[in-house]
Amino acid sequence: MKIRFYNVRILTMADDFRVTRGEVQIKGNRIAYVGEEKHTREEWDREIDGDGNLIMPGFKDAHTHSAMTFLRSYADDMPLLDWLNKQVFPREAKLTPEDICHLSKLAIMEYLTSGITANFDMYLTPDTIAEASVTCGFRTVITGGMNDFTQSLEEMEEWYCEYNHYHPLISFQLGFHAEYTTSEKLLAGLAELAHKYKAPVYTHNSESLTEVQQCLDRNHMTPTQYLDSLGLFDYGGGGYHCVHMTEEDLRIFKKRGLYAITNPGSNVKLASGIPPVKKMLDMGIPMAIGTDGPASNNCLDMFREMFLTTGLAKIRERDASVVDANQVLYMATVGGARAMGLLECDTLEEGKLADLILVDLHQPNMQPLNCITKNLVYSGSKQNIKLTMVNGRILYEDGCFTIGTEAEEVYKKANEIVARIQ
Amino acid sequence: MKIRFYNVRILTMADDFRVTRGEVQIKGNRIAYVGEEKHTREEWDREIDGDGNLIMPGFKDAHTHSAMTFLRSYADDMPLLDWLNKQVFPREAKLTPEDICHLSKLAIMEYLTSGITANFDMYLTPDTIAEASVTCGFRTVITGGMNDFTQSLEEMEEWYCEYNHYHPLISFQLGFHAEYTTSEKLLAGLAELAHKYKAPVYTHNSESLTEVQQCLDRNHMTPTQYLDSLGLFDYGGGGYHCVHMTEEDLRIFKKRGLYAITNPGSNVKLASGIPPVKKMLDMGIPMAIGTDGPASNNCLDMFREMFLTTGLAKIRERDASVVDANQVLYMATVGGARAMGLLECDTLEEGKLADLILVDLHQPNMQPLNCITKNLVYSGSKQNIKLTMVNGRILYEDGCFTIGTEAEEVYKKANEIVARIQ
Repeated sequence: MKIRFYNVRILTMADDFRVTRGEVQIKGNRIAYVGEEKHTREEWDREIDGDGNLIMPGFKDAHTHSAMTFLRSYADDMPLLDWLNKQVFPREAKLTPEDICHLSKLAIMEYLTSGITANFDMYLTPDTIAEASVTCGFRTVITGGMNDFTQSLEEMEEWYCEYNHYHPLISFQLGFHAEYTTSEKLLAGLAELAHKYKAPVYTHNSESLTEVQQCLDRNHMTPTQYLDSLGLFDYGGGGYHCVHMTEEDLRIFKKRGLYAITNPGSNVKLASGIPPVKKMLDMGIPMAIGTDGPASNNCLDMFREMFLTTGLAKIRERDASVVDANQVLYMATVGGARAMGLLECDTLEEGKLADLILVDLHQPNMQPLNCITKNLVYSGSKQNIKLTMVNGRILYEDGCFTIGTEAEEVYKKANEIVARIQ
Repeated sequence: MKIRFYNVRILTMADDFRVTRGEVQIKGNRIAYVGEEKHTREEWDREIDGDGNLIMPGFKDAHTHSAMTFLRSYADDMPLLDWLNKQVFPREAKLTPEDICHLSKLAIMEYLTSGITANFDMYLTPDTIAEASVTCGFRTVITGGMNDFTQSLEEMEEWYCEYNHYHPLISFQLGFHAEYTTSEKLLAGLAELAHKYKAPVYTHNSESLTEVQQCLDRNHMTPTQYLDSLGLFDYGGGGYHCVHMTEEDLRIFKKRGLYAITNPGSNVKLASGIPPVKKMLDMGIPMAIGTDGPASNNCLDMFREMFLTTGLAKIRERDASVVDANQVLYMATVGGARAMGLLECDTLEEGKLADLILVDLHQPNMQPLNCITKNLVYSGSKQNIKLTMVNGRILYEDGCFTIGTEAEEVYKKANEIVARIQ
């Protein structure tokens, strides 16, 4: 498909947050041109009048458990351990791989409504997660969730090799669930894999105070220090949450180039705490933003996460000037793409993959146009997403999905699955 | 107009958060029937197939400065005092009453997109605030913002008498800006007015630590204790923000039946702090939620405020089980209406005023339908608002406004005003 967006405002995220006017051309799955309006005689499959709206790179949701849509609003307003043991685990045990495909599609639909063009997904069955994304045309980086109960080292290696050559929309990163669920033997084995493939490793890290304290009791080191001592981060990687971090933890993140992937919606809802985002940014630690899963957030909305990222930092530091809008926008786009290894999806530039969004500025929350990047972070909302394109295909436009399945069918299946496993 | 909504789910907010199926009839500006579907031969101006979506009372935005839309994204990421003195005050001084009318309309449009059917507005010119609301068909309770620099006692009394008999959509409550901007003489005068009219009084209260400390230095009492000692709250009223409250302050709120109106978006963005919402609710202090103005928030979105209200409480108390979704939903609807004196707009019941919304459940963030009230608070978003009705008139439906002015005209005027006063 050849698609031309004209009469648009353009935020490339490669040009110091500058917004220009012009046009963007898509050929196949790539961005073919970004710049001033051209009046060529080329033939296009679609020419879209952007009406002065904003075209920019899609948001990257750098930590998800998509299929947990089935638990949305099932287990809220309860302490973390009750939530996990009484609500999450017993129901998860009843899921089939096919359920996970359907439930992931429901999450993908929500990502699209929020301008999210790729997710970094940790869940049980990579085959049906990949199936959901490929069917919908969505981009997913799957990461391992290995622990003592599910997923083995052998599977990790097999999946790493398979899903990095499976489909252009799918890739795979080594990963494990968390220090507190994974034996040292497994972790050492994963470190060997990381060395063998010179690959980064990702995991939940220092989400709760209890987790950090228990790791200190077991290993006399924090999770970051312990995992680093095993050689897991010798080729980089990152941590989800990173709420309770020591100075030494942050130095390791900096030294190894580890991504701190913040999940503020989940962290407030589960009362986990507020991470030191200002300090991380000041130190030059690379950062990204994730929604976490719909069981703990419950919304898969990058606008809410962006506001929370800056708002919570301001509260933590008691300073309204910290972690400004542009820093947050960078984390939600460029930072996310790079954290996930999607080096061709980070900015809106010629030659990059066409993962982009059109943001409706003709809405009261985007007016007046004093500063568009601040509008996005401080007053932006899902209703501003006019169009979401992944890999050159429009998957969402004006409230309608083009994902190979009817929306109502996805809702129906999700409700059937919930009814079955209750 | 006679309008019938059928095939709807109904949340009356008068029935212990129960959601039922049925129909709702509107005749003129009142709710004429709520219950099971009827098959009468009555003639209707419109019969709306709700498609299983949710009809419920509109949200009440219990603290706003609507016309400050002109400052959206002008003055973010800076300390509070710089923000006020360098950005807000110099620009406010250049506003005309007509500007305030236009800028208020922009805010009203955003309220409508978020399912807000009434606001509690403190700003400079009640005449053009009322004009904006009446023109749009929106419901506004204006409150005084009296202080040493603007608005006098005489105006307070005049406005109290005038705007409570001006138009069915408009009412007025006594109020002043804050303890730190208002002399004791003026406050004593306002207390006299409150006694004369047996009227409640509203003000900004204990928003920042500095404010509380300075009041202690001046008066040897906290703002709540000081203002109560002057007799201002003898007929009730409320406080906006209420972030830094002592035990004694809370006892006064409880004793006087004062509404604590929380503004979490503004409180995080300006780094003011997190209020003790759990404690207030436990004590039975009546509560409501407001967005504050678009200069400090910057979004006028009750969904974001609802999530923040519960999320920040959970973080403050380090307990994921506190301030549950239903408590928050109550604050955002019934609590707000009662805080503002809108006793006929609180619930969806026969005889009440027809201020209501239709929430789109056919969206991925509202599925599966495990628990609709939790979905609203934890994953709801502006894009779920299908229709907003105020006083029996549909002002917003499927993204379109019916407010007597073209949306583009409102945006254009707002940008012109900004350009002029820059």
